[in-house]
Amino acid sequence: MSVQVTNAHVQKLDRQHVFHSWSVQGSLDPLVIAGGKGCRLWDYAGKEYLDFSSQLVNTNIGHQHPRVIAAIQAQAETLATVAPAHANLARGEAAKRVLSHAPAGFEKVFFTNAGADANENAIRMARAVTGRDKILSAYRSYHGSTGAAIAATGDPRRVPNEFSRGHAHFFNPFLYRSDFWAENETQECERALAHLKRVIECEGPGSIAAILLESIPGTAGVLVPPRAYLEGVRRLADQHGILLIFDEVMAGFGRTGRWFAFEHFGACPDLIVFAKGVNSGYVPAGGIIISETISRHFDERMFFGGLTYSGHPLAMAAIVATLDAMAEEGVVENADRIGNGVLASGLSRLTDKHAVIGETRGLGVFHALELVSDPETRAPLPAAEVATIKRALIDKGVLPFVVENRIHVVPPCIVSEAEVAEGLAALDAVLGEASARLG
Amino acid sequence: MSVQVTNAHVQKLDRQHVFHSWSVQGSLDPLVIAGGKGCRLWDYAGKEYLDFSSQLVNTNIGHQHPRVIAAIQAQAETLATVAPAHANLARGEAAKRVLSHAPAGFEKVFFTNAGADANENAIRMARAVTGRDKILSAYRSYHGSTGAAIAATGDPRRVPNEFSRGHAHFFNPFLYRSDFWAENETQECERALAHLKRVIECEGPGSIAAILLESIPGTAGVLVPPRAYLEGVRRLADQHGILLIFDEVMAGFGRTGRWFAFEHFGACPDLIVFAKGVNSGYVPAGGIIISETISRHFDERMFFGGLTYSGHPLAMAAIVATLDAMAEEGVVENADRIGNGVLASGLSRLTDKHAVIGETRGLGVFHALELVSDPETRAPLPAAEVATIKRALIDKGVLPFVVENRIHVVPPCIVSEAEVAEGLAALDAVLGEASARLG
Ligand SMILES: Cc1ncc(COP(=O)(O)O)c(C=O)c1O
Ligand SMILES: Cc1ncc(COP(=O)(O)O)c(C=O)c1O
Repeated sequence: MSVQVTNAHVQKLDRQHVFHSWSVQGSLDPLVIAGGKGCRLWDYAGKEYLDFSSQLVNTNIGHQHPRVIAAIQAQAETLATVAPAHANLARGEAAKRVLSHAPAGFEKVFFTNAGADANENAIRMARAVTGRDKILSAYRSYHGSTGAAIAATGDPRRVPNEFSRGHAHFFNPFLYRSDFWAENETQECERALAHLKRVIECEGPGSIAAILLESIPGTAGVLVPPRAYLEGVRRLADQHGILLIFDEVMAGFGRTGRWFAFEHFGACPDLIVFAKGVNSGYVPAGGIIISETISRHFDERMFFGGLTYSGHPLAMAAIVATLDAMAEEGVVENADRIGNGVLASGLSRLTDKHAVIGETRGLGVFHALELVSDPETRAPLPAAEVATIKRALIDKGVLPFVVENRIHVVPPCIVSEAEVAEGLAALDAVLGEASARLG
Repeated sequence: MSVQVTNAHVQKLDRQHVFHSWSVQGSLDPLVIAGGKGCRLWDYAGKEYLDFSSQLVNTNIGHQHPRVIAAIQAQAETLATVAPAHANLARGEAAKRVLSHAPAGFEKVFFTNAGADANENAIRMARAVTGRDKILSAYRSYHGSTGAAIAATGDPRRVPNEFSRGHAHFFNPFLYRSDFWAENETQECERALAHLKRVIECEGPGSIAAILLESIPGTAGVLVPPRAYLEGVRRLADQHGILLIFDEVMAGFGRTGRWFAFEHFGACPDLIVFAKGVNSGYVPAGGIIISETISRHFDERMFFGGLTYSGHPLAMAAIVATLDAMAEEGVVENADRIGNGVLASGLSRLTDKHAVIGETRGLGVFHALELVSDPETRAPLPAAEVATIKRALIDKGVLPFVVENRIHVVPPCIVSEAEVAEGLAALDAVLGEASARLG
């Protein structure tokens, strides 16, 4: 490009022509991003940002990993697109790689474009296999924005979108804001399971195809479940011939310091839904890892679902390179070491120090700070104050992932100790000011 | 790769690890595709195929257009992914390009990953704007496989997937197999409109948010509507405050010899849904072109929909390069000249010649041959015979797009006269043999 591109030009183009997700269009002031590398992003004025959002918690391998970029470029050189019905090397290799990180007993991968359509197809498989209609999912959850995925979603974005039938919701465990009047983790777990048991009874076990659950609910606030919860859900599902689907779209592929978040708990699902981290979103991709039993069901029976870009070569090449690089460079181990080390301890120190932080929780590079206006009542910090904090962090060059009254601390899995220190320092300063304003 | 890749290796990888769309998994024998260029594809044994399928009718610009490949590679070098909330040059430029081909009165673009989720969000917008629930769509249609898109779909793939409420279906015009006992095009048009009017009355006009219609139903058989039909639908919609959505996923971006298929008719929709041809599927992308009125509605009101990869930089770079190349190289004009010239006349000659072809119809490089076992009763050719024809074409090195009893003749928009002649010769030979078998 011969003309010098400016932030103002890009912002103007955006505001004139681009319609944005989840927004009142008239009130937008989008940040301009020109390029990036590792945990850094920058705009056209040369301002740099430390990416503590991983965008939408997807760039697990960081920005512009040279090996993944090269693989995309090479595949583009060879063949950019091919219909799903054909066999293609990149697709076969990607499926093999994905399966290599799954537990024993998983056999095939169905590829989609993203997280929502992966959940759609997991739901479809569960309904086809069980011959039942209903999907149970948690109120504190997000599963995507297409028809069935948004109806499965529990958070308030479901309400204006409830155009799909056969979905029911239950309360999942979250001790800090317990829906079960629990006083400790053991109680929260027991009561959450008792509640789920009651919901299953009341909805009619014979009508329920699957329980769909984020292993660690992400957008809802990084709600690490009590240790025994997922095992308990698995047991309830088994008692009633209900399939168990873990949505690992946000939590999977290294985010928690393991390949899959459910590995922290003793439970294994029938279907594993993934997207984001599988190729860090360098090319849109998602999918389902299918257990042997479910895979075999469709050996003799039609599967009624599909999409034009299932197993898209560029996305597949990015998956192969990403998973190989992650394995060889110890990216998951880094997320574990840094995330469960300096990041967790640093956030814990901030929580002790600043009254505005009600709680910190998380695993690996998947943490959330719960901001409150009163530590006693745990009243969420008002939106205007949260917006001020977000702006202050961005001004300090740190990109946070802010949801409701929370800051999700979700850097790429490759984040270094020095970058964590830099991010924590910004949080320390900004949350110190916020606590002072609270008085 | 140092090891020599073979077709057998790629097929085996596929059969071991990859779960396929719309299939009985145990019965698959996928064709191996290694690479391609223009209208050609090849496997690892050096066998070449003339692509008369455009894969899933998406490679309008042909395979591996150097300018689009270079743009993807360059964007990959700069920034592969960025969250939808940020402003990014490629995204703004892509939206501007897409809008430049739309009629006056369209203002913004919402980007999605593909066709299904574009329809999902068009449906969401229509429901939000009108405050009504129901979506009317045609039985002979395909709109995608996610929750709301598959419920809007009319073809039989809807039936095992009917988990969304608020959808009703009507019969669309198709003179060759008229649902209205019509004897000519004028009658078919009048009766189809009278039928739609009755469906609207019976469903309750005040409950209908939108009529969703493929401008030219594609998968259903390239059903070019009678000239006055879309105008009639527009009038009915306007009478009742119903929004009109044209699904141009397959028909749009050059396929019919115009930028959009609805340009052949005198009707303009409120929302234009696109995918496939917009960047030939080189990177997964879809979207909605939003009219000023609908766009303005959301200036002050929240839009409740979104997706991680909305406006993905690689997809956007591919859109910019594709639309620029198509404009500068006269790709749409080529589709018009070749498609409505030698292709249409050649298919018409074959139809006169071979008893197995009941009818040919289409516009541009968007044609279908209706195969019948009896020209009088118009009984569809049995599946086994269609499968034999498909295999024979592939053996002759021509990749057809086969749906039910039809061969869709849908080469890339860049197809040359010589390539059309080659494809027609293969069709001539194979359909000649088939007609002979019919006796
Ligand atoms: C757990 C989970 N599931 C599904 C999705 C939907 O993914 P996508 O936005 O790619 O459709 C998300 C997106 O944030 C998610 O976090
Ligand atoms: C008219 C039409 N709409 C929507 C779709 C769905 O698009 P996708 O497969 O990209 O979800 C298709 C796919 O063939 C289509 O032909």
